[in-house]
Amino acid sequence: MPRTLLAAAILLLLAHAPAQTTSAQAARGYTTSHRADLLQRFSDFLSIPNVAADPDGLRENANFLLAQLRQRNIDAQFLTLAMPNVPAVVYGRIDTPGAQHTIVFYAHYDGQPVTPSEWDIPTPFTPTLRTVDGEQRIYARSAGDDKAAIFAQLTALDALRAANIPLHANIRFVWEGEEEAGSPHLEQILQANTGLVHGDVWLICDGPIDQSGRQTVVFGARGDTHLAITVYGPHRGLHSGHYGNWAPNPAMMLAQLLAGMKDENGHVLIPHFYDGIAPLSPAEKAALARAPVNDPMLMQSFWLGRTDNAPRHLLSLLNEPSLNINGLSSGQTGAHAANVIPPTATADLDLRLVVGIDWRHQQQRVIDYIRSRGYFIVDTEPTQQILTSHPRVALVVRDQASYNAVRTPMDLPIAQEVIAAVESARGEVVLLPTMGGSVPLGAMERAANTRTITVPIANYDDNQHAANENLRLQNLWDGTETMAALLTLQ
Amino acid sequence: MPRTLLAAAILLLLAHAPAQTTSAQAARGYTTSHRADLLQRFSDFLSIPNVAADPDGLRENANFLLAQLRQRNIDAQFLTLAMPNVPAVVYGRIDTPGAQHTIVFYAHYDGQPVTPSEWDIPTPFTPTLRTVDGEQRIYARSAGDDKAAIFAQLTALDALRAANIPLHANIRFVWEGEEEAGSPHLEQILQANTGLVHGDVWLICDGPIDQSGRQTVVFGARGDTHLAITVYGPHRGLHSGHYGNWAPNPAMMLAQLLAGMKDENGHVLIPHFYDGIAPLSPAEKAALARAPVNDPMLMQSFWLGRTDNAPRHLLSLLNEPSLNINGLSSGQTGAHAANVIPPTATADLDLRLVVGIDWRHQQQRVIDYIRSRGYFIVDTEPTQQILTSHPRVALVVRDQASYNAVRTPMDLPIAQEVIAAVESARGEVVLLPTMGGSVPLGAMERAANTRTITVPIANYDDNQHAANENLRLQNLWDGTETMAALLTLQ
Repeated sequence: MPRTLLAAAILLLLAHAPAQTTSAQAARGYTTSHRADLLQRFSDFLSIPNVAADPDGLRENANFLLAQLRQRNIDAQFLTLAMPNVPAVVYGRIDTPGAQHTIVFYAHYDGQPVTPSEWDIPTPFTPTLRTVDGEQRIYARSAGDDKAAIFAQLTALDALRAANIPLHANIRFVWEGEEEAGSPHLEQILQANTGLVHGDVWLICDGPIDQSGRQTVVFGARGDTHLAITVYGPHRGLHSGHYGNWAPNPAMMLAQLLAGMKDENGHVLIPHFYDGIAPLSPAEKAALARAPVNDPMLMQSFWLGRTDNAPRHLLSLLNEPSLNINGLSSGQTGAHAANVIPPTATADLDLRLVVGIDWRHQQQRVIDYIRSRGYFIVDTEPTQQILTSHPRVALVVRDQASYNAVRTPMDLPIAQEVIAAVESARGEVVLLPTMGGSVPLGAMERAANTRTITVPIANYDDNQHAANENLRLQNLWDGTETMAALLTLQ
Repeated sequence: MPRTLLAAAILLLLAHAPAQTTSAQAARGYTTSHRADLLQRFSDFLSIPNVAADPDGLRENANFLLAQLRQRNIDAQFLTLAMPNVPAVVYGRIDTPGAQHTIVFYAHYDGQPVTPSEWDIPTPFTPTLRTVDGEQRIYARSAGDDKAAIFAQLTALDALRAANIPLHANIRFVWEGEEEAGSPHLEQILQANTGLVHGDVWLICDGPIDQSGRQTVVFGARGDTHLAITVYGPHRGLHSGHYGNWAPNPAMMLAQLLAGMKDENGHVLIPHFYDGIAPLSPAEKAALARAPVNDPMLMQSFWLGRTDNAPRHLLSLLNEPSLNINGLSSGQTGAHAANVIPPTATADLDLRLVVGIDWRHQQQRVIDYIRSRGYFIVDTEPTQQILTSHPRVALVVRDQASYNAVRTPMDLPIAQEVIAAVESARGEVVLLPTMGGSVPLGAMERAANTRTITVPIANYDDNQHAANENLRLQNLWDGTETMAALLTLQ
């Protein structure tokens, strides 16, 4: 290499690398010296209820975040629709003079539904610090999914400003309020504001990092859709003695219907369920091959004596569509069990999708299977006339707030820049073609004319979507460093 | 026939028939003239909560009934055990001078568990009168099952006394307080009081009459036992995206386990499930052949498009053992459904038994089947060590408050006398070898050294064991006539 070129390369490296090292270091210093204050402020944020069933709570979260942005002199506004009860997207905008790129930070402030009786803290919105196996964790709904990411972004910005580290790119914050409801209005909101939300890349700050504890960058997410299936027995509960053997039991009918959907090893038997999967590229296969194999540790952690689709590994299986029963209910169990043939039995199915499979097609494949098992399918509560004139009737409610999977190629220049920034803050990272969970990446990519790359920060064992959700505090501090590095992308 | 014999026969008929005709007529006159007062008093009785989870409520019912007997100058006492929280049997005794026989009237004052939110009256213990299809009904837990029978017996006695109609036999009342819990202490209580509870026949006043509306006499009841089955997925709820396809879903495991228990026509596939059934006698077969076929009416009434084990009829199927899923639960459905792989799935199974099949054997057959499907069976909550060292683990809780089926031959003299008395009050009756429901007849027969015959009075569509239980008032008035005829048996 000629000497002048070498010097130019060194200058380039110096111009690039130190700025990012400094960002992460600044974040570390800031979170260390402001720990008590940061915990109090994170706790204040977690105290605001954020479930879909509570629109007032969601509104309060949005107002809180708008105020947070404005307190930092960030140009902020709500993006919403002229419809009642659509939680607003909280939008923030930092224009950096001379910026060549625009980086959009996506996260969501809503949380999964809660069943307070299952939590062992006073309420899911009473944030509680606990030390577990020598590590501090904070317990509350959305501690991990996904308020941690929003809080890390705000804190990283504060740290950079405190250290007088300048931004290089334009920065946008897009914080959604109905991700856990399937983002039914996000695409429409973005499309009405394409100029505001466009970026060179959207960084999706959601989900957990790899179970090994290493920082993770993910290049896609599975799509998601649901079906709620109800099958019918007698119109009212019947005495199981006087009518047992004769009146069809809907719980048994549902069991038989569901049982046929998978073999005993967890492979889905619904015809065409796996048809159309887009294959992984060589780079994606190579990244998967390098990723840690955490399966034995996870089996121990989750008390599992086997896994579905063994001997294949978790990370490999996430690149296929899945079918999960979120819940089953019919009659009563436990202390309330009565000797009754219940009138109905219901299952809530979650279908995860990968690139190449459309959610409408996947719903239809399941419905076609139900029909093939002798069911007459309705989409509203069946009448007496319908029930008495068909041997088997199933009410199938299709979730319309569904979306497809998305995958960004790992070798795009912007992908390589994001990887370099994160590695500058956190060392070698785990690169995954897709995460198992879902975020509405397709809507974002279409509406913002962008690519998406996911940079999660939460611990894998954060009980997201379940009772006792929690965030390992070290993940919050590490995540703040990661966000600082990304905020100072060129 | 010689003239003297004929005259003697006529005299015998006159001595016999008018007394019973008069009993029923007296009851009809009494209930007609005291209707408002009787309804108020029945309503007072129904207002006292009577579920197993509320021992104070059960005690209040027992005190109420003891007072009712003593107000009528009947020698009355509690029969119970020296153990806490065993609901007392309320016992009443009328010794009739010169009596040749002792007739025991059994009924129960406890009711099935309630889920108040499912009822469309203010509470299950707020008795409410309604007119349905031109007929008056009273809604409350135990309106039909089984406070109606107790109230009819007390009212029949009042009617006979008001009309100065004498009793002929010794009369005993045995009113139990834990029938709906499987009568776990009844046998022990009776055995401690054999002298008090012995009779030539026990009349079991429980259950519904035939769906045709005709008065019914039943010569047996199915036995009953339960198994609660819980299967295990991850130790805590896991995100269905991040772990779907990999972490076993207990709802799916349970569906597959249950699905294999029956074919699609409702025939039980568990090995040996039908082994050992005692065949029906010619008299029992003939009675069944004469019984009304109500199936098409019932299918319409229950909004059913098919029945299990078709084309066989309901009354025939009740003479076989049954397997019913009382309830299923795993995760959540409906508005609370979350994208989670639930930690457990539970089913509550009700097994009805017929003569020839012991409840312990039937439990074991189901457990053997579960084991044959690859499950390691435990009877207490499994540890991490157990769960991680077996691919499939099932917690199976055997109901110990179980009992076998009993059937009294229809051609015994006491059986023929009971039939004649009931027919004198209510005309031609439906005779059934067994009822589909269960009462602990075996314990009664053993402890009281007696035979049992069941004389129900409730309407078949009384929603017993379910929400909105109710009694058609006409059944209360008709049932009082039936009880009056039985109280004046020779």
